Formats: sequence, structure tokens, C-alpha cells
Amino acid sequence: MPAEPYLLTPGPLTTSRTVKEAMLRDWGSRDGAFIALNARVRARLVELAGGDAAAFAAVPVQGSGTFAVEAMIGTLVPRDGKLLVLVNGAYGTRIVRIAQVVGRAVAAIEAAEDQPVSPDALERALAADSAITHVAVVQCETTSGILNPVEAVAEVTARHGRALLIDAMSAFGALPLDARRVPFEAVAASSNKCLEGVPGMGFVIVRRDALERAKGNAHSLSLDLHDQARGFEANAQWRFTPPTHVLAAFDQALAEHAAEGGVEGRGARYAANCRILVEGMRAMGFRTLLPDHLQAPVIVTFRMPADPAFDFPRFYDQLRERGFVIYPGKLTVADSFRIGCIGRLGAPEMQAAVEAVRATLAGMAVASGAP
Amino acid sequence: MPAEPYLLTPGPLTTSRTVKEAMLRDWGSRDGAFIALNARVRARLVELAGGDAAAFAAVPVQGSGTFAVEAMIGTLVPRDGKLLVLVNGAYGTRIVRIAQVVGRAVAAIEAAEDQPVSPDALERALAADSAITHVAVVQCETTSGILNPVEAVAEVTARHGRALLIDAMSAFGALPLDARRVPFEAVAASSNKCLEGVPGMGFVIVRRDALERAKGNAHSLSLDLHDQARGFEANAQWRFTPPTHVLAAFDQALAEHAAEGGVEGRGARYAANCRILVEGMRAMGFRTLLPDHLQAPVIVTFRMPADPAFDFPRFYDQLRERGFVIYPGKLTVADSFRIGCIGRLGAPEMQAAVEAVRATLAGMAVASGAP
Repeated sequence: MPAEPYLLTPGPLTTSRTVKEAMLRDWGSRDGAFIALNARVRARLVELAGGDAAAFAAVPVQGSGTFAVEAMIGTLVPRDGKLLVLVNGAYGTRIVRIAQVVGRAVAAIEAAEDQPVSPDALERALAADSAITHVAVVQCETTSGILNPVEAVAEVTARHGRALLIDAMSAFGALPLDARRVPFEAVAASSNKCLEGVPGMGFVIVRRDALERAKGNAHSLSLDLHDQARGFEANAQWRFTPPTHVLAAFDQALAEHAAEGGVEGRGARYAANCRILVEGMRAMGFRTLLPDHLQAPVIVTFRMPADPAFDFPRFYDQLRERGFVIYPGKLTVADSFRIGCIGRLGAPEMQAAVEAVRATLAGMAVASGAP
Repeated sequence: MPAEPYLLTPGPLTTSRTVKEAMLRDWGSRDGAFIALNARVRARLVELAGGDAAAFAAVPVQGSGTFAVEAMIGTLVPRDGKLLVLVNGAYGTRIVRIAQVVGRAVAAIEAAEDQPVSPDALERALAADSAITHVAVVQCETTSGILNPVEAVAEVTARHGRALLIDAMSAFGALPLDARRVPFEAVAASSNKCLEGVPGMGFVIVRRDALERAKGNAHSLSLDLHDQARGFEANAQWRFTPPTHVLAAFDQALAEHAAEGGVEGRGARYAANCRILVEGMRAMGFRTLLPDHLQAPVIVTFRMPADPAFDFPRFYDQLRERGFVIYPGKLTVADSFRIGCIGRLGAPEMQAAVEAVRATLAGMAVASGAP
């Protein structure tokens, strides 16, 4: 077993050696050098979202991506507001749960996990319920790997004069999301997905005017996005201890992202990774849950093979021994497993992953991956 | 200027090379190797608090120490409970603020920043107000560096049948806190203080029976300590993405802590560091805010020198150029600055720090550090 397997998961994922090496130093969290690093990271995040720095602020949040999503919901939806969530997987469901826990009125439009959310259903819901102030959608629902139509959702939401909150966790940095074309109030994502940093922080890119209006909304001190932003504006520092090493790694990861050609370059590599994976798996009889036009190049759900010789725990363990950690599926619509194609991996690693699957099937005497 | 100055701050602090090198690998957050690492860390934390594993659980929380404190307050104080906070600095004040934001009834007994909190005042308050269900105290208040009498506070609290919540952030791992002698319901601390890990997570060591009773109390999904603990009990995994590299560093830091002789060994080194610092500074005329018997060996507050040639921003910058980052003070009772003595530093580094102060004073033509 290799000391360090490749991570074909939805994150944490495989990062570059240089990103990890950026953590070989300790930073004073209130020292000038670290303050400059944070300013650079925050400015770059706004740029990546196509945001104008006068109109948008990037507010990092300690913790996981869910912490950033909770900070976004709890701060931006007023206590007397109402959130409508478009749900087609676990992350949409989690947003509903967050709204319930933090005490906001919430409604959901549910689609099956293998179906994109529906802008038409959203249109009808907004027309019918004027109490709804905010709409939330997940850009790429990692549950299945499906790409949701955020542009159409944004258009409908804007036309009805409501505010859009996007969970772009597993898409940001590889799939386009441009404030100049997609009207949104805020987008939440994290350091350790397509931007290929290490886990330990999320961030919200948010309209400054919305942030101003949000003063006093939050249900939490630690997750008060308004207060967190005010801290950065006041002295360019974090209110509470930041994960300094994670930030240093993220700064390096953003430099490597830019060097690869930004969102376009990163997205092209992931699309190629996804193609190699899907074609290689299909050649062994595997079937994807989603048709290609709904598949985001982030994580692919494969149906479990029907061959009785196939045993998933053994499959997982043997792939790991061959150097690849994959992800067990959690879908309700289909018995399945998932293989990610993001992180510091390219064509050679994806081809090797496909070969590892082939060898594992052979070792288990599974004739075909067909479901 | 050295590439990496020593951090004489209350944390983030200087960590060992080997702790940082533990971050040079990516971990699958749901993979067996990482699950084993977490189990080891959690068991060790309970041990360090003198807790019986049947009675106590260690629940790590993503984010900074404040996130762990908020999770502790918001989860353990019931919605109809009342918290009494003993305040003698910024971290006590922050607990009051957390309780207010999360909507719990809260009262405070305030002492000056250079005075320990008073068990007698607590005694009177508990006798007078039967609505108080929980008491919160900061073991070492980093604002001044003062050591609070947690044992006496715990005794009074227990005698009145109330539950004690301790913020042991800057003390845990170096100053004794033993569940067998100090009755507490929960203690919150973080990875990057006396345990010398890197920042990015806190933890709460909590009585299992209290955790069970706390179901449904929390104001937040991300900071629901009950739900977080249930996740670990269910499958030994984090509910939401953990800061994997921070955990790996923490695991290594805990091994180095044990190798140094645990709380006793770590505490002895810090006490020696503190002595070198205080004696060296006093020899230059500086005066500490606190008398020695109230001084925790964590961070020392010095009064600003009276000599008009002394300029703090220049002092800070020149010390940094000489390789030492210190911390500006934030006290209300005295114009002051602070120098930490925790982290991967020993006698040679503390002596070098004192020499750097001496050279800086000479360069500024300051005759004495006397206030």
C-alpha cells in the first residue's frame, strides 16, 4: 500500500506538494506578513467570482464549508425573512436543516437526486409566495455529481426581486460562476475543493450592500458574517484565531490555480479527468447514474455492478491498496458508489485509477461492471 | 530579518518542525487511517483532563477556540437555563457576548483585569439566584496572563449544585486541570496553545451525561456539540469536513507533549521560560502588571516604559527584525504590552528574546524599561 494514496473523493482531496509545503512555517496571526497574505487571498476570491471589489467582499470563515454556508444563511436571511431551497441531494437538504436550526422560515422544492432542480418550479413558487425573501441553490450537488442550472435559477430569482444564495462548494474555481452574468447576493465555497487548498476554512463572496443590511441578523457570534467582515474592514485581521497554516496553503493554492489558467484551465483539466474516468469505467461495463449533459466534472456516481462476485467493501479496500481512495455513495435513488476527479491529478493518475479498477475487478473475478 | 520569527504571542505560536511536517500528507476524511488518528486524539484529550472515558467524551470542533467555547455554551446551557460568567478580561467578556447572541439568560461578576475572579462573590451570587444553572470561568485569562482560582470556583459551584464550564484555552496541557479533583461539566480548549499544535480546531471535554441531556439545545447546526459527538459515536467520523492536516499535526503535537512528560513536563518548561523572561525584563527596569503569585506561565503583561524615547510600534518592529514577534496589549487597566512564553521555545530562545529587548532599548536610547 502506498504511504499516501490518491484521493478520488469530493474533498478533502489530493493537493500539490508545494501547497502542503506552504504550511512548514508558523505565522503570527496579527503580524504584517500574515495580514498581507489575507488581503491577497480575499481580493483574489472576489476576482474569481467576477465581482467588482467595490460591490463585493470575500469573507473567510474558520471551519468547514458547512460553517460558511451556515454563516451565509444565518447572517443574510433576516429573522423575519423566508428561505426557499431548491433540493436535489444531501447538501440542499443540509441548507434546509440549517435554516430550521437557526430559526428561519424555510420551504423546499425537492427534485430526485438524478434530476436537476427546476427553474420552472421556482418560478411558480416565487409567484405564489411573496413571503420568500431568499432562494438557495447548490451549484454542483456532490451527492450525485449533478450540475444544477444556476444561471436560469438566478435569472428567475432576480426577475422576482428575491436574493440568491449559492452553495458553490464543489464547483467554485473549476466551473464558471460570474457575478457579471449570474446575479447573486452571496456564494459560499471552501478552500479544499476545486481550488485545491487544504481543509479548514470556507468563505462567502457577498454583496457589500447585503452585508450592511445584515447587521444583527446572525444567530451565532462565531458565524456572524457581518461581524467577521467588519473585523477585516477595521484592521485587516480575523476576529478570532485563523487557521494560519491553512491560509498559507490556500494562498499558494490560489497562485497555482492562476498559473494553470484560472477557472478555465482548472475546469479543462477536470473535464479531461472526468472523460478518462467515465470512458474507462464504461469500457468495463459500469454505468453512470447521470447522463453526460448533467454530469459535472467533479465526482461521478456509478451504479453498483449486478455481478454477485462484486463486493463493495473489498473493492474499496483493494483500490486503496492500489493507491486510490474512493467514496462510498449515499444516494437514495440508486445503489451506487462515487469516484472524484478533482484535486492535483491529471490524465496519468486517472488512467492509473481506471487500471486499478480493472485489476480489482479481475482479482474479484467480476466479469463486468454492468448494473 | 529571519524568514520565520519566533512567536512570543498567546497563539498561534511557534510549533516544532515535526508537527508541521505531519501536514505534508493528504488524508481521506472518511478513510480508516484518518479515523484511527481521530480516535487516538480524542482518547488522549480525555486522559489529559484526568477524565474517565466512561464518563467523559472529547468532542473536537472545527474553527478556532472561540468556536469550541460557543459550541459548549450554546449546547450545554439549556434554552431556559441561566449562565453566570466570572469576568476579568476579554475572554470572559466574550463568553457573556456569546450567551447574549445565542439567546441565553446571562449574568456576570466582573473583576478588574489585574485581579483574579472571586469565589466568595460567586458564593453570594449562587446563594442569591437560584435561576443560575451554569457557571463559566476562564482558567488563564490571556488578556493579562492572570491565573484564576478554578479549583475554588469549581468547589463553590459544585456545592451549590450548579454545572461548571471552563474556558481553559491558554492553559490546557501546561497547567493542571484534573476532573478527579476539579468537578466540571465541560472544558473547552484548542489545538494551538499549550499543546503546541497548529490552529484550526478547538475541542470540548464534556461529561457524557450532560451531553445526552443537551440534545436539541443548540442554536447552530455547525456548533451543535451534541450532534457532533453523536457523529463520532456513530461511525468515528466528523459530521462535516475536518481540517485533516491540522488533525495530523495535532496528533503529532500530542505525541511530543507526552514525550516531554505531559502536563507536568510542559508546565515546567513554560515556568522556566516565564522566569527567564520576567527576571530579564525586570533587570532592565520593566515591571509586570501582575504579582508573581497571580502570573500564569503563559503570557506576561509588562507596563509601558515611561521614558519618552520608548515608542511601541518601533519596539515591536525592531524586535520582529531581531526574530521575535510579540503581542500588543489590549488591557483597560494599564498601558501595556505582552510577551508570551509558550510554544516550541526553551531557555536559549527566551534568553535571546531578553537580549533582543535589551538591544532594542539601547538602539532607541531608552535608559530603562521602568513605567
